[in-house]
Amino acid sequence: MRRRKAALLGASGWIGQHFARLLADHPFFDDPILCAGPRSAGKQLESVWILPEWGPPPSLAARTITSATAASLEKEGVEVVFSALPTEEAGPIETELARRGIAVFSNAGSHRMDRDVPLVIPEVNGAHLDLLRGRKSKGFIVTNSNCSTSGVAVAVKPLLPLLKPREIVVTTYQSLSGAGFPGVASLSITDNILPYIPEEEEKIERETRKMFGSVQDGSYVPMDIAVYSNCARVGTREGHLEAVTLDSKSEVSAEAVRAAWAGFRPLSEVREGTLPTAPESPVIYRAEDNRPQPLLDRWAGTPARAKGMAVTVGRLRVRSKKVMFYLLVHNAVRGGAGGSVLNAELALRKGFLGE
Amino acid sequence: MRRRKAALLGASGWIGQHFARLLADHPFFDDPILCAGPRSAGKQLESVWILPEWGPPPSLAARTITSATAASLEKEGVEVVFSALPTEEAGPIETELARRGIAVFSNAGSHRMDRDVPLVIPEVNGAHLDLLRGRKSKGFIVTNSNCSTSGVAVAVKPLLPLLKPREIVVTTYQSLSGAGFPGVASLSITDNILPYIPEEEEKIERETRKMFGSVQDGSYVPMDIAVYSNCARVGTREGHLEAVTLDSKSEVSAEAVRAAWAGFRPLSEVREGTLPTAPESPVIYRAEDNRPQPLLDRWAGTPARAKGMAVTVGRLRVRSKKVMFYLLVHNAVRGGAGGSVLNAELALRKGFLGE
Amino acid sequence: MRRRKAALLGASGWIGQHFARLLADHPFFDDPILCAGPRSAGKQLESVWILPEWGPPPSLAARTITSATAASLEKEGVEVVFSALPTEEAGPIETELARRGIAVFSNAGSHRMDRDVPLVIPEVNGAHLDLLRGRKSKGFIVTNSNCSTSGVAVAVKPLLPLLKPREIVVTTYQSLSGAGFPGVASLSITDNILPYIPEEEEKIERETRKMFGSVQDGSYVPMDIAVYSNCARVGTREGHLEAVTLDSKSEVSAEAVRAAWAGFRPLSEVREGTLPTAPESPVIYRAEDNRPQPLLDRWAGTPARAKGMAVTVGRLRVRSKKVMFYLLVHNAVRGGAGGSVLNAELALRKGFLGE
Amino acid sequence: MRRRKAALLGASGWIGQHFARLLADHPFFDDPILCAGPRSAGKQLESVWILPEWGPPPSLAARTITSATAASLEKEGVEVVFSALPTEEAGPIETELARRGIAVFSNAGSHRMDRDVPLVIPEVNGAHLDLLRGRKSKGFIVTNSNCSTSGVAVAVKPLLPLLKPREIVVTTYQSLSGAGFPGVASLSITDNILPYIPEEEEKIERETRKMFGSVQDGSYVPMDIAVYSNCARVGTREGHLEAVTLDSKSEVSAEAVRAAWAGFRPLSEVREGTLPTAPESPVIYRAEDNRPQPLLDRWAGTPARAKGMAVTVGRLRVRSKKVMFYLLVHNAVRGGAGGSVLNAELALRKGFLGE
Repeated sequence: MRRRKAALLGASGWIGQHFARLLADHPFFDDPILCAGPRSAGKQLESVWILPEWGPPPSLAARTITSATAASLEKEGVEVVFSALPTEEAGPIETELARRGIAVFSNAGSHRMDRDVPLVIPEVNGAHLDLLRGRKSKGFIVTNSNCSTSGVAVAVKPLLPLLKPREIVVTTYQSLSGAGFPGVASLSITDNILPYIPEEEEKIERETRKMFGSVQDGSYVPMDIAVYSNCARVGTREGHLEAVTLDSKSEVSAEAVRAAWAGFRPLSEVREGTLPTAPESPVIYRAEDNRPQPLLDRWAGTPARAKGMAVTVGRLRVRSKKVMFYLLVHNAVRGGAGGSVLNAELALRKGFLGE
Repeated sequence: MRRRKAALLGASGWIGQHFARLLADHPFFDDPILCAGPRSAGKQLESVWILPEWGPPPSLAARTITSATAASLEKEGVEVVFSALPTEEAGPIETELARRGIAVFSNAGSHRMDRDVPLVIPEVNGAHLDLLRGRKSKGFIVTNSNCSTSGVAVAVKPLLPLLKPREIVVTTYQSLSGAGFPGVASLSITDNILPYIPEEEEKIERETRKMFGSVQDGSYVPMDIAVYSNCARVGTREGHLEAVTLDSKSEVSAEAVRAAWAGFRPLSEVREGTLPTAPESPVIYRAEDNRPQPLLDRWAGTPARAKGMAVTVGRLRVRSKKVMFYLLVHNAVRGGAGGSVLNAELALRKGFLGE
Repeated sequence: MRRRKAALLGASGWIGQHFARLLADHPFFDDPILCAGPRSAGKQLESVWILPEWGPPPSLAARTITSATAASLEKEGVEVVFSALPTEEAGPIETELARRGIAVFSNAGSHRMDRDVPLVIPEVNGAHLDLLRGRKSKGFIVTNSNCSTSGVAVAVKPLLPLLKPREIVVTTYQSLSGAGFPGVASLSITDNILPYIPEEEEKIERETRKMFGSVQDGSYVPMDIAVYSNCARVGTREGHLEAVTLDSKSEVSAEAVRAAWAGFRPLSEVREGTLPTAPESPVIYRAEDNRPQPLLDRWAGTPARAKGMAVTVGRLRVRSKKVMFYLLVHNAVRGGAGGSVLNAELALRKGFLGE
Repeated sequence: MRRRKAALLGASGWIGQHFARLLADHPFFDDPILCAGPRSAGKQLESVWILPEWGPPPSLAARTITSATAASLEKEGVEVVFSALPTEEAGPIETELARRGIAVFSNAGSHRMDRDVPLVIPEVNGAHLDLLRGRKSKGFIVTNSNCSTSGVAVAVKPLLPLLKPREIVVTTYQSLSGAGFPGVASLSITDNILPYIPEEEEKIERETRKMFGSVQDGSYVPMDIAVYSNCARVGTREGHLEAVTLDSKSEVSAEAVRAAWAGFRPLSEVREGTLPTAPESPVIYRAEDNRPQPLLDRWAGTPARAKGMAVTVGRLRVRSKKVMFYLLVHNAVRGGAGGSVLNAELALRKGFLGE
């Protein structure tokens, strides 16, 4: 297969470097051109590396970060751009890239709710990508969801037909890396919890509804479901833990819920093994009393390329029509860089990235 | 007023030492006889002191811990026993003390659901103490509630008439001290969350229902309300944070909820200022975006004797019939030692501790 | 006594707010005019309060922060300025204030090594203040030492006559608040240690030598002693732990070292009790195996105004001519705001702040 | 090569499971028989697994833990035993195993200072193994050093010829896992440091001296060097940070020190690549200002089998005859299980484990 020429925006940030990790030696994409703001431009990736648990990928470590523009990326023939830009900067830049015919896969929040932008988790609503078929331009924007939302969407999607829930209550224990780097001050969080993450609760509702919704007449119709959430920051490094409570329309058993998760193989329509970053099981159920835990489950997912892409669920309790469980999602992988990489892989397989 | 002769069981543990702090120089009770198991008996309190934020109270520091029995305590004329015994030991010992005519105020879980034992938070169901009137013996057991439960009960009680909720969903972020000392291994919780605390969720439901219930024909009738909860341990030292979601029977405004909290002065029937450990405002509402926080709000409560006895609420969000907020309760004070001290103060005022 | 009119620069920072705490209702100084940069000016102190363990002092909470200049402070008749400015800003501002006849007590590093600026810890080198006698102007600058240095200086000063050491080796475990707020990113320090604090090791040597030195012919002659140090940041909130190794000139016993600490009452020349922020015992020796600890010893010091002003020492080991121990100093109090408040108290007592 | 039949004692503990990780699929040894005390015997390894960052090795996960005796292990033909027993239990068991002709490689402290037991780090004093040549019995005990000691020994060994130091001052920042599991209570260490680890300082001195010593007339003659240390526990998960100060006999340059580390290839006498757990570079020098850090450097070492076996050094400062630096050693790998595995590999290569 021809590797697409790729670039990465925001290569100096926490999510940006997870992108760099995941895109190095990727079978579908060239090692990306690395772009970042003026403080990092001109430096080698390894000299601005901030992910402590991972060194810079060998194939990218010595690559110099540039301060490219949409025009220069177009000129260089870039076909795919991964965007780890901060939401407050991403909007017009991503629009301009798409206008120039480039496919943009973005982690930023700017365009997630745009009428013509698919907000996609392949296992949840991969079909939403098909809205791109009609368009005239070659360029487009596809976004992944908010980090907390991605956990809810992946874990609840297989339960929708079974439970037909009218509402979801989510309470989060979000890790430090969700705020980027430098992010949360150590004096704010040591021996403490911050029960407020600006706009997070709104995002969880509106993004879940959009992804669970349908496409009608070329636009998205959100699902009619209420999503209430309480979002707090705790002092873990990576991996968001979330407590989920669902109201089932009718009585249901714990066995049925577990079976729905176990049978969830939504990418089987795509030929087996062809999305390198897709985990074999998007949802992993742990039967132990005290799982999932950030320390043990944040890197769930096989094969190796899909580490951190599986959502772990556990502590399932079903009482009459109430279904409760905990989930753990790697916020920076499944809920961040990995989400967009997987979107790009699906888009390529579906033919949206040219021949 | 005559000070009652008091003893403290479990003086070497985390909750036991919070008791010692609160009982030192107490206007209603003599400095307590300190009792503990064989590892601590014979030692001075200061030599087994484990609360780092507090030194041992000067009046008790040099007092020797003994290994008293129910019989020896009766012989010494002890009238009031405060019990910080582990639940697995407390049961028969407390029963024996009550049988010998001693009033027992216990933090242990053993007797909380007993038919003839009041489970009391003075501001929530102080009237439940009146069940003690009919009894023949002078001795009895009164318990405080589980630490997480105490936060829910105090914060939700003032809202019951307004919301008439059918169910409560609670998700907790419980601090390390809730597991006592040594409690949670540091390797289990550093950079981690443990989404399971044995039996905690069951306790929150059954204890809330008992305390919100009524007394009919001399026994407790639990309130018909469902309490669902998800309980997790996080790495904070003290103070449980809890996210609460309530379904209101009819539409309600945030103003009305805040007014219900602000107007909550349930101990006004007791003469002003006569319960030394009672906080002026049992529920403190914080209007800031990001409160309550363990580090900032764990010691809420005035006057000085009531530090840690107020429950702080914040982040109130009301959407149609859904009411959501966070609360912070000091698990070891309001939800532990302080709860039982306040119970004893109320019992004394109500005349249950003799003349 | 006439209270001196005071102002506080840097009132929105971590050290600045420790100053505010210590200066509220101070017997020697008026509640200070609060000054800070443009982000905080115009706001009330309570709305920018950042010290979680302490609320804003009641008498200052509602006071509005201003953006005063040296000229405006002079005009308002301010006699004493406490400076919690960042070192990179403090230099010219403090010089200008002194030029205008104002006494400046500064925590900033800018002027500490200036030839004509006393760098003072009253218990260590209070006599250095006397250098101010000869000067023409009413204004001057007095600085406290670096936070780590203050611990070494207070703990080692009483041992100098006994040990006559030629060198000191210090290794630090410095708390988060030493870097101010927001300071250290949580992702940098959670499950980590940062073995580098820019310029800290240089400061410890040069400041210790200056404070241990003498005044000859109106200028400071540093002590001829080598101070080697290794400085690291760990994840504690407040209180610097330091391991100290000294070479004694001759054989010495642990008893003699303990006696030197116990007999250290350097402010007895000042009339008893007249420096409100001075701790009764500047050095507190703990005989337990495992002390000092940040959590237990950071607030050491009596009376109440001197909490955090005592340096705790422990784990003394003497082997032939080698003396080793740990110390704990509250970096933001003894090693910060409290240090300068104590300097101002001494300066007033010595007559440098007018009649 | 014939794989030796192996067993692992203490398979349920923290160090034991690092052994299990390192011994799974080892080219020199059969997957070990897993042994542990009565609480774990009869269970599968995966059901008692406690290392969160690692799952149980696939080849051992389902293996049942047994409660073997020395006699039963001999009967089964076990040739090599790895011991992760607690020091208070290991002594007589290991002696009995050796007596029965089994080669014991132990992490326990019991026999480290025995006259006839080599205390070995292959890169430091691999030649000490040769003392085993003379013995009659096939069985013997070889121990690895204490975890903190191993860092000092590896980092200082290459500097001995250059500096000829008379004394070493070491101050440690030791991680939680150094105390095993459950080890340190979270309430003891959260927002705290514990400046005392029983007997650690004594071990660092006596073990360093033994390993740096020589073999004369069939017994060990310790090096005449003083090793002073201050040992403290901090809240990091794994990896001990240590500050080292050395007195050089004569003036030395930083370049010379770096060159000594860079040229340190002590296992070149053993044929290249033949000790699978040996790191290519036992000492890795990092030139950055702020290295080594536990989070970034604990897993240093290549190839994959040697992860955690390299000691990282940095922040080198040389002033006249004083040499100072920080080191980071993975306490449970280089300073624990990995140390003994490497010892066994060397013993096999040297012919002490039979043909």
